[in-house]
Amino acid sequence: MGNIVAFGEMLMRLSPPGYQRLIQASSFDAIYAGSEANVLISLAQMGCQTKYVTRLPENPLGEAARNALRHWGVDTSHVAWGGKRLGLYYLEQGAALRASNVIYDRAGSAMAEAEPSMFDWDTILKGADWFHFSGITPALGEGCAEAALQALRAAKKRGITVSCDLNYRAKLWTVEKCRSVMIPMMEYVDVVLGTSEDADDVLDIQLPPMGMRDASIAAAEAIHKRYGITISAMMQRESRSVIDKGWSAVLYDGGAVYDSQHYELHTVDIVGTGDAFAAGLIYGLRSGRGPQFTVNYALAASALEQTMVGDYNMASAEEILPLAETEGFQDIKR
Amino acid sequence: MGNIVAFGEMLMRLSPPGYQRLIQASSFDAIYAGSEANVLISLAQMGCQTKYVTRLPENPLGEAARNALRHWGVDTSHVAWGGKRLGLYYLEQGAALRASNVIYDRAGSAMAEAEPSMFDWDTILKGADWFHFSGITPALGEGCAEAALQALRAAKKRGITVSCDLNYRAKLWTVEKCRSVMIPMMEYVDVVLGTSEDADDVLDIQLPPMGMRDASIAAAEAIHKRYGITISAMMQRESRSVIDKGWSAVLYDGGAVYDSQHYELHTVDIVGTGDAFAAGLIYGLRSGRGPQFTVNYALAASALEQTMVGDYNMASAEEILPLAETEGFQDIKR
Amino acid sequence: MGNIVAFGEMLMRLSPPGYQRLIQASSFDAIYAGSEANVLISLAQMGCQTKYVTRLPENPLGEAARNALRHWGVDTSHVAWGGKRLGLYYLEQGAALRASNVIYDRAGSAMAEAEPSMFDWDTILKGADWFHFSGITPALGEGCAEAALQALRAAKKRGITVSCDLNYRAKLWTVEKCRSVMIPMMEYVDVVLGTSEDADDVLDIQLPPMGMRDASIAAAEAIHKRYGITISAMMQRESRSVIDKGWSAVLYDGGAVYDSQHYELHTVDIVGTGDAFAAGLIYGLRSGRGPQFTVNYALAASALEQTMVGDYNMASAEEILPLAETEGFQDIKR
Amino acid sequence: MGNIVAFGEMLMRLSPPGYQRLIQASSFDAIYAGSEANVLISLAQMGCQTKYVTRLPENPLGEAARNALRHWGVDTSHVAWGGKRLGLYYLEQGAALRASNVIYDRAGSAMAEAEPSMFDWDTILKGADWFHFSGITPALGEGCAEAALQALRAAKKRGITVSCDLNYRAKLWTVEKCRSVMIPMMEYVDVVLGTSEDADDVLDIQLPPMGMRDASIAAAEAIHKRYGITISAMMQRESRSVIDKGWSAVLYDGGAVYDSQHYELHTVDIVGTGDAFAAGLIYGLRSGRGPQFTVNYALAASALEQTMVGDYNMASAEEILPLAETEGFQDIKR
Amino acid sequence: MGNIVAFGEMLMRLSPPGYQRLIQASSFDAIYAGSEANVLISLAQMGCQTKYVTRLPENPLGEAARNALRHWGVDTSHVAWGGKRLGLYYLEQGAALRASNVIYDRAGSAMAEAEPSMFDWDTILKGADWFHFSGITPALGEGCAEAALQALRAAKKRGITVSCDLNYRAKLWTVEKCRSVMIPMMEYVDVVLGTSEDADDVLDIQLPPMGMRDASIAAAEAIHKRYGITISAMMQRESRSVIDKGWSAVLYDGGAVYDSQHYELHTVDIVGTGDAFAAGLIYGLRSGRGPQFTVNYALAASALEQTMVGDYNMASAEEILPLAETEGFQDIKR
Amino acid sequence: MGNIVAFGEMLMRLSPPGYQRLIQASSFDAIYAGSEANVLISLAQMGCQTKYVTRLPENPLGEAARNALRHWGVDTSHVAWGGKRLGLYYLEQGAALRASNVIYDRAGSAMAEAEPSMFDWDTILKGADWFHFSGITPALGEGCAEAALQALRAAKKRGITVSCDLNYRAKLWTVEKCRSVMIPMMEYVDVVLGTSEDADDVLDIQLPPMGMRDASIAAAEAIHKRYGITISAMMQRESRSVIDKGWSAVLYDGGAVYDSQHYELHTVDIVGTGDAFAAGLIYGLRSGRGPQFTVNYALAASALEQTMVGDYNMASAEEILPLAETEGFQDIKR
Repeated sequence: MGNIVAFGEMLMRLSPPGYQRLIQASSFDAIYAGSEANVLISLAQMGCQTKYVTRLPENPLGEAARNALRHWGVDTSHVAWGGKRLGLYYLEQGAALRASNVIYDRAGSAMAEAEPSMFDWDTILKGADWFHFSGITPALGEGCAEAALQALRAAKKRGITVSCDLNYRAKLWTVEKCRSVMIPMMEYVDVVLGTSEDADDVLDIQLPPMGMRDASIAAAEAIHKRYGITISAMMQRESRSVIDKGWSAVLYDGGAVYDSQHYELHTVDIVGTGDAFAAGLIYGLRSGRGPQFTVNYALAASALEQTMVGDYNMASAEEILPLAETEGFQDIKR
Repeated sequence: MGNIVAFGEMLMRLSPPGYQRLIQASSFDAIYAGSEANVLISLAQMGCQTKYVTRLPENPLGEAARNALRHWGVDTSHVAWGGKRLGLYYLEQGAALRASNVIYDRAGSAMAEAEPSMFDWDTILKGADWFHFSGITPALGEGCAEAALQALRAAKKRGITVSCDLNYRAKLWTVEKCRSVMIPMMEYVDVVLGTSEDADDVLDIQLPPMGMRDASIAAAEAIHKRYGITISAMMQRESRSVIDKGWSAVLYDGGAVYDSQHYELHTVDIVGTGDAFAAGLIYGLRSGRGPQFTVNYALAASALEQTMVGDYNMASAEEILPLAETEGFQDIKR
Repeated sequence: MGNIVAFGEMLMRLSPPGYQRLIQASSFDAIYAGSEANVLISLAQMGCQTKYVTRLPENPLGEAARNALRHWGVDTSHVAWGGKRLGLYYLEQGAALRASNVIYDRAGSAMAEAEPSMFDWDTILKGADWFHFSGITPALGEGCAEAALQALRAAKKRGITVSCDLNYRAKLWTVEKCRSVMIPMMEYVDVVLGTSEDADDVLDIQLPPMGMRDASIAAAEAIHKRYGITISAMMQRESRSVIDKGWSAVLYDGGAVYDSQHYELHTVDIVGTGDAFAAGLIYGLRSGRGPQFTVNYALAASALEQTMVGDYNMASAEEILPLAETEGFQDIKR
Repeated sequence: MGNIVAFGEMLMRLSPPGYQRLIQASSFDAIYAGSEANVLISLAQMGCQTKYVTRLPENPLGEAARNALRHWGVDTSHVAWGGKRLGLYYLEQGAALRASNVIYDRAGSAMAEAEPSMFDWDTILKGADWFHFSGITPALGEGCAEAALQALRAAKKRGITVSCDLNYRAKLWTVEKCRSVMIPMMEYVDVVLGTSEDADDVLDIQLPPMGMRDASIAAAEAIHKRYGITISAMMQRESRSVIDKGWSAVLYDGGAVYDSQHYELHTVDIVGTGDAFAAGLIYGLRSGRGPQFTVNYALAASALEQTMVGDYNMASAEEILPLAETEGFQDIKR
Repeated sequence: MGNIVAFGEMLMRLSPPGYQRLIQASSFDAIYAGSEANVLISLAQMGCQTKYVTRLPENPLGEAARNALRHWGVDTSHVAWGGKRLGLYYLEQGAALRASNVIYDRAGSAMAEAEPSMFDWDTILKGADWFHFSGITPALGEGCAEAALQALRAAKKRGITVSCDLNYRAKLWTVEKCRSVMIPMMEYVDVVLGTSEDADDVLDIQLPPMGMRDASIAAAEAIHKRYGITISAMMQRESRSVIDKGWSAVLYDGGAVYDSQHYELHTVDIVGTGDAFAAGLIYGLRSGRGPQFTVNYALAASALEQTMVGDYNMASAEEILPLAETEGFQDIKR
Repeated sequence: MGNIVAFGEMLMRLSPPGYQRLIQASSFDAIYAGSEANVLISLAQMGCQTKYVTRLPENPLGEAARNALRHWGVDTSHVAWGGKRLGLYYLEQGAALRASNVIYDRAGSAMAEAEPSMFDWDTILKGADWFHFSGITPALGEGCAEAALQALRAAKKRGITVSCDLNYRAKLWTVEKCRSVMIPMMEYVDVVLGTSEDADDVLDIQLPPMGMRDASIAAAEAIHKRYGITISAMMQRESRSVIDKGWSAVLYDGGAVYDSQHYELHTVDIVGTGDAFAAGLIYGLRSGRGPQFTVNYALAASALEQTMVGDYNMASAEEILPLAETEGFQDIKR
C-alpha cells in the first residue's frame, strides 16, 4: 500500500509533572506532538508507511521535533525548514472536577507563518494513497489554510483518499471563521471524524436536543446529505469526571450505522484521543475488514492511547487487535 | 474591604513522592503550609487582602516559609522572628484502604514556644475586618493559646468578625485539654466550621447515633444554643476509599439549613480540604451573596483543592464560581 | 518460634516511572525482589525470623540485592555467591484496559545456573520450622528444581511445614513441563496457595465452567483428594480494569471453607499481591488464631500490598490486624 | 532609604537538567528571571526596598512570574497586565569547550509589545531614589525603548540616580541599532557597568588592542569624557574554560581606579553574573562605604551568584560582606 | 577478630538536589547517617564485624534509620528504642567560594534525651575488641556524655581498644564546655584522630603559628605527652575552593611520624571525610600492616569517600588497597 | 558521497544518576548505544548518510534501540531481528580518584548469538563507500567475528574504505584471543585508530618504554610496516584525575606525523570519546581537507563529545569546525 501523508503543525508540549498546576510548576515535561503528527506516529506503529509535512525552524527545538518523528518511524524528508520559532502549548492536566487547561503559544511559529509555495504537493504526494488533515491546520493562518486547500486539490487530482478530523479549537478561531474556511474544503474530503459538537462548530450542522448516539447519527447523516461525504465516524464521550469517561463511537457509511464497543476509562493523559481514533479509523478503512471492525479498532486504539503518557498511541496493531476483536482485556502478560 | 488576619503555625511538610511510604523514601517533596496559612493563601488567590501572623526562626527554612507566603500574596509584615526551629510534619499519602499518616515534628518550634508578648494585636488588627484561627493554634502550647485569646479579645473590641475551624488533632492534645481551652474562646467566635465529630471533640457536643446530615444539623443547632454562635458550617465526608469520597456540607445560619451540592471525588492530595472550605466560607460570607451561595462556593473550593498538589487552594474566584453556580464541570479548556 | 526459610531467585526489577511504556522509557526505577524474597520481607516486617536462600553474583548488583534483604531484616547468611549475572525483569505497568507487561531477562543468571551442591540444606534448615517456595523456583532450571526437591526432602525429614505458592509463569515454562516437575513435589507440601487457574496449570486440576468461588472450592478439594494436601488458599480476582479489582479469597482446611472479606481495590503497583497473601497466610497459620482469622489476615495483607510501591508488603502486623479484625478502614492518622 | 526601581522584561527560562543539550531534553527546569528583575531580587535579599516595572500577560505563566518576584520580596504593584504571551528563553549550559547557548523566544511577548502609555512614571517613581535598566530593555522594541526614555527623563527630573548595565545582546539587535538607541540615553545615566566589549558595542568606544585591565580603564575614561558619566564599573573575565574563569573588576569614579580582589571560579550556573554585579555595585554605592568597598562587594556578590542555581543572587549582605572585607572564604559552617 | 562497637546519633540528612540552596529547595534528598554510624558502615564494607549503639524513636523514620544500618551490614540488635523524634540535619552543599552550610535540628531527639541506663555496656561489649566514638556524642546532652563515659569505663575494663574522633562542632557546644567533658575522657582513649584545630578546641592544645604539617606533629606530640595517648592521626586539608582541596595526613605512633600520600581532590559530597578516615585508620591499625600502610590506607579511604554521594564510604577493602599501595589510580575498568 | 556502513552491537546503557555508585542506585538513566552505533550517530549529525547493521530482539527494548538510531537519522533498514535479549551494560561514573566502572551484561544477546547468514553483505553494502567496525564486534562471539570477516571481504571486493577502531576490552576477551582474531582482519583495513596500548593488546605492537607521543608514532609506523595500513590515528590521554585529562592525538599517513591541538578537559560523561574521534576521523578523511585538518577535527569532535551526556556526539559539523580551525572557544552564544 501507499504512503499516508498528513499536513499539520508540530508543537512542543510543556506539561508540569503529575497533577501540578501551571502556576506552581518548577519543571516541565516536554514532548513534541501535534494532531496530524500524532495520527501518523500511531499509524507508523501499526506498520504503515507515513510521511509528515510541516514547517520547522532551524534550531535545536525544530530539529528535536523532526527527530521525534523519525524516532517513531515517520518520514520527514518533506519538512520545510525555516521560520522563527517552534510553536508551544502548555498543558495542565485536570483531575476530578478541575478542568484540564491548554495554553497555546503558537503565534508566529514557523508553521503559522508558512506560505503555500513552501510545499510542492505534486512531489510530496507521489506514492501516497491517503491524505489526512484536521481542522487545526487551516486555523493556523492564511498561508496554512491555502496550503491545505492546495494539498486537497492535488490529492483529489491523484485519486487519493482524504480524511479530515474536524477538531474545532475555540482558542484558535471563531466558529464563523472556522466554517467559512472548512466548509469549502469538504468537497475534497472522503472521510470525516469528530463529535456532533464539532459537526456544529465546523460544518454548521445544527441539531435539536437529543441523546448522544442519536446526535452522532443525525450529524453523520447531515454530513452525508449536505456535503456528500459518505463515511463519518463520531466519537461519544460521557463525562464521569475530568479524567473518567464512558467511551464509544459510531461509524456511518452512507447506509448503515455501526456501533463500537463501550469502555469505561480512567485516563492517564488526556491529549490525543481523537488523533488515535483517527489513526485507528484510517487503519481500519484501509484494512478492508469492513465498518464494524473499523469502528471497533478505532475505538480500541483511542482507548489504549488514553492509558499512555503523551499525545500519541504507541500500540502496535498486535496490541490493538485483541481489544477490537473480543470483549475483554488482559491484566498482565508474564 | 478590610484585611483578613489569621494566626497559626507554618510548617514544612515533607512527603515522599507519589504513594511511597515514609519508611522507604529516599527523597521528600517539601512545601510550607499550615492550617491558617492555607486559608489565607486561598483567600489571596480569590483577590482578598490577607495578613498572616506567626513566629518563624531566623534561618533559611524560616525565610523560605515567609517567602512562600509572599509568593502567594499574603502579607508577612507581622511575622515575629526568633526561636530555634521550624516545625515539620511528615505526610505519607494513603491509597485504597491504606490510611494516610501524618507524623508531627513540631515540638520546640519557634511558634510552639511563642509568647503572647511577641504579638501586638492592636497594631496587627489595624485595618482588619476578619480574624481566623483553628483549633490547632491553641494546641501548640500555653503561649500560643494565650496569644490566641488575646487576639480574640482585641478582635472583639474592634468589632472584627471571628471564624474558627474546630480542627481537632488527636496527636497534639487530648479531648479534655482541648475542650478546656477551646470552649472559653467560643464567646468571641462568630463563625464555626468543622465536622460533627469536631463538634464533639472540641465543643463537647455529644449526639446520639444518627445519619451524617442529621448530625451536622444537630451539632450546628447545639453550637448555636449552647455557645450563641449563629453560623456553623459542617463538612460531610462519605468515605469510599482512603482517597475517594462523597463530599458535601451544610450551612446553618441560626434559622435555616442550606445544603451544598454533592461531589464524588478522587483526591490528588489529601491535606487542606477543611482549610479550603474555610476560605470559601469566609469569601462567601463576605460576598453578601447569601448562605446558599456561600455553602456552594465553600464546597466547590474545597473540592477543587483536593485536585491540587499541596495543602492549599490555588484556584481563583473565577475558577470556583462556575462550580458554585452550576451543576456540572468542564473537561478541558482549549 | 523458629525461622521461616524460603528458596528462590532475587531479581532486579526495572520499571519506567509512572505509566510510561518500556519503549519510551529514558530511566528505570530499580528495586530488588523475587517471589519468595517478597514473602520473607513481608514476614520480617510482621516480626518473624526469616532466612533467604538464593545464589547471587559477586558484583555490585548481587551485593545490592543482598543489601535489600538485609535492609528489611531478612537473614542472608546462606546466600551462595557466584555465577555470571543477576537476573532482571522489566515491568511495564498497565492502566485501564492496557495490560501490564513483564519481560524476563533472567536466563543465565546466578540462580538459574545454580547447582544443588551449592546449598547445604541440613545446615540451612537448622532452627527452621517453616519452608516456603513457589512454582517459579523449579522453573528456573534443572539445578534449581533439583535443589528445591532436596530442600523439600530435608524439610520433611525435620518435620518442617512446607508451603507452596503454585505461581504458574507461562513465560518460563510450559504447562506440561511445569506439571511434570511440580506434581511430584506435592508429597512434601503441607499448604498450597494460588488461584484455580494455577491449580489447573500446575497441578492438572481441570474443572468444568463454574463461578469463581465454586472453582476455588473445587480446586481446593481436588488438591486435598488427589495430593493429600489439607490446607489450600485460593485467591479470587474480579477484574474491573487492569488496575481495579474485586479481591477476596477462600481458605479450605480439609473440612470447611472460610471466606475472607471482600475489597474493591485501585492498585498502586501490580506486582507481589500473591506473595503478600502467602506471607499473610503463613503468619496467620502460625498465629494459632484459626482459619477465619488466617484468611482475613492474608487478604488484608495482600490488599495493603497493592497500595504500596514495590513488590513486597511493608506493613507491620499492627497495621494489618485492624483490617483483618474489623469491617472498615481509617482515612488518615493525625 | 528610598526604593530602587527597575524596568525590564521577565522571562521564563527553560533549561535542560544538568549538562543535557536542548536537542536531547525531555524535561526543562523552569525559573522566572530577567536582567533587571535579577538585580532587584539580589538587592531585596540584601535588605533593600525594590520595585519592578514590567508588563505581564494575564495567564498562569504571567502570574507565576509575578509570584516569583513577590517570593523574593520585590514589590510588584506596578506591573502592567496585558498582552499575549510571556517571553521565554532556552538555556543550554555549556561545559569544558562547548559554549553555552541561549535561544530567545520573546518576540510578541507582553513586554515586547508594551506601549509607553502603560507606565505612569510619576506614580511609579514616587518614593524612589534609584532607577536601574539594562541595554536589553530598549532592545525589545520601539515601545520599550520609548518607555525607558520616559522613565529616564522622569527620574532625572526627580533627581533619582540612574544606573545602566550596557548588556549588549547580539541576538536582539545590531550594534548600529543599539548605539542609535542607547547613546542618547546616556545623558540621563549616572552609573554605567559592563565590559569593555560592551562599551564598544553599545557606546561606540573603540580601543586599540591592549590588556584587559587597561581596556577596562580606557573604556571607563572614555565614557567619562564622552558621555560625562563619572562612575563606570568594568567586569573582567579571563576564560579558562566555558565554566571556569578568572574574575575581577575595576571601578572608576572619574578620578581614581579601584581594583577588586580576583577569584578563580568554577561556575555552577552561567547566567546572571552581571546582574549580581550590578546589584552589588548599587548596594555598595548606596552604602557610603566608598569605591574600594563597592567594587569588592560587587565582585563578591557576582562571584557568589555563580555558585547558585538560577539567574539571581540569593545571598544576604551578611553572606557577601566577609568576602568583600577579607581575603579568604570558609569551607563549611557547622 | 572481634566486633567493632560505636556509640553515636543517627540523623536524617536532608539536602537539596545538586547545588541548590536550602532557601530555594522544593525537595530534599534523604539519607540516614551520623559520624560513628558512618565509621561502622565503612568498616562493614571492608568486611569487619560492626555493632552500632544508639537510641531511635519507634516511628517510620527511626525504623528507616535502623534499616539503613542493616542495609550496609551493621548489627543493630543493641539499638535502644524510644524517645520522641529522630534528629535531623539540613545540608546545603557549597561551591567555589560559597561555604557549605549545616543546620542541625537535633534538639529533643531520641538520642539527645537518652539516659545512661538505656545502654547495658556489659552485654553490648561482649565479643567486642574495639570501641569508637566522636566528640559529637558527648555534645548531645548530659545523658549521652554520661553514657559515653560508662562505655569507656566498661571498654577499658575489658581491654578493648578505644578510638576517638575529636570532631569539634561549634553549633553544638562551646569550646569550654567541650573541653570540660572531653578531656576527662582521654584517659580511656588509645587512638585519637582529628585536625590540629580540633586538638585545640577539644583538648586545649594551643600551638604557635606554624605550617600545617608541623602543627599536626606538634599536636600529636602534645596529645601523647599530656594525655598519654600514643597514636594520633591528623588530617591536613589545604583549601583550594570550597569543594577542591589538597588532602593528606600524618600518623604519629609515639615515636615516629608517618606521612601519607597527597591528593588533589574535587569533592562530590562534602560530608563524612573524617569518618571515612577513622574507618580506614581502625582497619589499618587492626590489620597489623604497620603505621605507614595505616596512614596511607586511611587517607585513600577518606579520599574515595569524597567521590561518593552520601556521608559514608561504600568502598570495599579491595577498592581501597590499590590506592594505599601504589602511586596512581585507574581511569576506568572495562 | 556514499553511505557509511558500520557493524556492531547496540546495548542499553544503565547508569545511576550523577555520581551515585551502582550499589546504591534506586534508579538508572537509560540510553541505547554501542561503539559503532555511536560513530554513525555522530556522522549523521555531521550530515553524512549512515547505515547500521546489527541484530536486535523483537521486544520493546530492541525496538527502542532501533528507534534511538532512527531518532538520530541512522538508517536501520538492515537490522536483523531475532534473538533472546538486548545486551546491557551498567556504567558507574567515577570521580577524582575513583575509577569509572563498566559491568557488561551482554552474554546471550541477540547480537552475540548472531550468525553470519543473517547478514547479506552484498545487499547491505550497495551504495556504500565506507565500512567501519571496532574490536568489540569480533569479541562478541564466533558468529560475529565470522560475519565481520565476511563484511570485510565484501567491502574489499567493492573497493570500500575500511576503518577499524582497535578498542581492546579486557572484560570481553584475552589479549591472545583478541590478537588471533583481529590480526588476520588487518589485511582488509585501510584506517586504524586507537591508542598505543591498543596497538599492543590487539596488534601485538610491543614498544620499549617511551613518551606518549613517541609511542603513538612508533605504533603507527609499526602498523604501517607490519600490516601495510597507511593511516593510523593515535589518541593520547594524560590523566589528571578520573574525569580530568589532557587530550590530543597524532595522525600518521604513511609519511608524515600530524599533531592535533591539545585540550585540558573536565569530562561530563566518560563514555564514547574514541567513537567520537573515529567519527571525526572518518569525516575529516572524506572531506579531502588533508591530514592536519582531519586530526584537528577528530580531536575537536572527541573533546566536544566529552562535554555531553551520553555515549555519542550530538554536535553538528558547524559546531565542530570552529574548534578545528581556530585556537579558542566561545563561552556563550546569546
